[in-house]
Amino acid sequence: MKVTENNKRSKNSPIRDGDLDSLLVIKIGGNIIDDDEKLSSFLKNFASISEKKILIHGGGKLATKMAGDLGIPQKMIDGRRITDAETLKIVTMVYGGYINKKIVSQLQANDCNAIGLSGADGNLIQAHKRVHPTIDYGFAGDIDIINLELLKSLLDQGMSIVIAPITHNKNGQLLNTNADTIAQEIARSLSAAYAVNLIYSFEKSGVLLNTDDETSVIPSIRPDFYEQLKAEKKIFAGMIPKIDNAFAALRSGVKEVTIGKAEELQKLIQHQAGTRITNE
Amino acid sequence: MKVTENNKRSKNSPIRDGDLDSLLVIKIGGNIIDDDEKLSSFLKNFASISEKKILIHGGGKLATKMAGDLGIPQKMIDGRRITDAETLKIVTMVYGGYINKKIVSQLQANDCNAIGLSGADGNLIQAHKRVHPTIDYGFAGDIDIINLELLKSLLDQGMSIVIAPITHNKNGQLLNTNADTIAQEIARSLSAAYAVNLIYSFEKSGVLLNTDDETSVIPSIRPDFYEQLKAEKKIFAGMIPKIDNAFAALRSGVKEVTIGKAEELQKLIQHQAGTRITNE
Repeated sequence: MKVTENNKRSKNSPIRDGDLDSLLVIKIGGNIIDDDEKLSSFLKNFASISEKKILIHGGGKLATKMAGDLGIPQKMIDGRRITDAETLKIVTMVYGGYINKKIVSQLQANDCNAIGLSGADGNLIQAHKRVHPTIDYGFAGDIDIINLELLKSLLDQGMSIVIAPITHNKNGQLLNTNADTIAQEIARSLSAAYAVNLIYSFEKSGVLLNTDDETSVIPSIRPDFYEQLKAEKKIFAGMIPKIDNAFAALRSGVKEVTIGKAEELQKLIQHQAGTRITNE
Repeated sequence: MKVTENNKRSKNSPIRDGDLDSLLVIKIGGNIIDDDEKLSSFLKNFASISEKKILIHGGGKLATKMAGDLGIPQKMIDGRRITDAETLKIVTMVYGGYINKKIVSQLQANDCNAIGLSGADGNLIQAHKRVHPTIDYGFAGDIDIINLELLKSLLDQGMSIVIAPITHNKNGQLLNTNADTIAQEIARSLSAAYAVNLIYSFEKSGVLLNTDDETSVIPSIRPDFYEQLKAEKKIFAGMIPKIDNAFAALRSGVKEVTIGKAEELQKLIQHQAGTRITNE
């Protein structure tokens, strides 16, 4: 079953918006990247999408493994990696080199003309070193500007864009940057030019009512229901920033946000799986 | 002193050819990449070139060092690296990730809008695994096709292109590929669309009459003089394939080929240093 055949002009497809072309901005979580078979299957599905599309990948575990093999200690604070100079080298190599080119070559094998970029390439994502009152995150980047013209030009040439979570400060410094945030900022930035569907795909089936029960997916969350779920403490704590970001993206013009399992990409696009975050 | 001011419209500039825009295709050798200060100075000079430009980099020593740090033994046959699966991972990380993004971010800092690509990105360079009757080179690629449309589109958008010597076989396999050969093939392929000047920049001042004497640079080599130099065994053996390739490039329409010191990039462009290989 191809996404192209089942979704392209069906009345289920909600991501046509007047004259705007639809665009899928898809974040893929690290655990799929660590699994060759799952990654290969995900990329086959991604390649079969006929709409314009951008893939943003992370790659946490591989970088941690490489740091271990090279004997470089890794510091984490509140689940965030502290990026010292040696760690920046490693994430640049692993995210920008190994993972990005592996994904691109597999997409090319599936006849998807992908181009892999970091935020430094074509000045795609300019950022600054994170400023924090008490914690020095090292070479961690917070995003300032997205180069929309480059993205639009590549998309309009029929290319699919694969983005590694490395940005730069336009002063020669590369910066490690959160892939979720890159996905959100790219989706927001492009929402004036395209009808954007932002998909966070990861190891869970969606936003779950019960963290341990993969069948307890909440199909759709509107703002009032979200407030209720939070008040009743029914939402998994780590999910709250993701959903807050999703609503922020919707307020900035993103057409829809879907959270769900990477293996179910086609169903996520067709609203047959995952959690849809919506203002409607 | 900027290349732009001194060279652009001077009568010394031989790389205007009728209506064709001039294009510099520059290969930079590994030893400059290993030296932060030399690399930074080279990239400043590269950034100041006003013509369209493509940079192809190698990066041999860093990959060898990384392989050593990770305990992966490296096999060389006749000076060529045997690329097993683990070594391919390393060169993809080091060439495609670390070096490529380091160069791009430094060019961005010098207001040169660079985009870094491997041969898999946008299907830029399609290759096949090297076939050899007796030696298995592993994942070493020999070039089949260059995607001219992508290069032209990026150049025409004002971007400078930085190419890592990694190609792919369009079947999901990345391949380690000689950077000199990539430079030559790109120069040849683009010679119908641009007046191409191919520059091999490395640690030597040019083709030397005496290998140990950096002042013995031969300023210009024509085919008959080359035959004479070879007959008199006055040419450094390792230089012969480089010069053979240079003449082959000229026969394929490349406007000129220059061999010289990376630190003298501006002078190489202006014919004030290095060795010019020419049919004229």
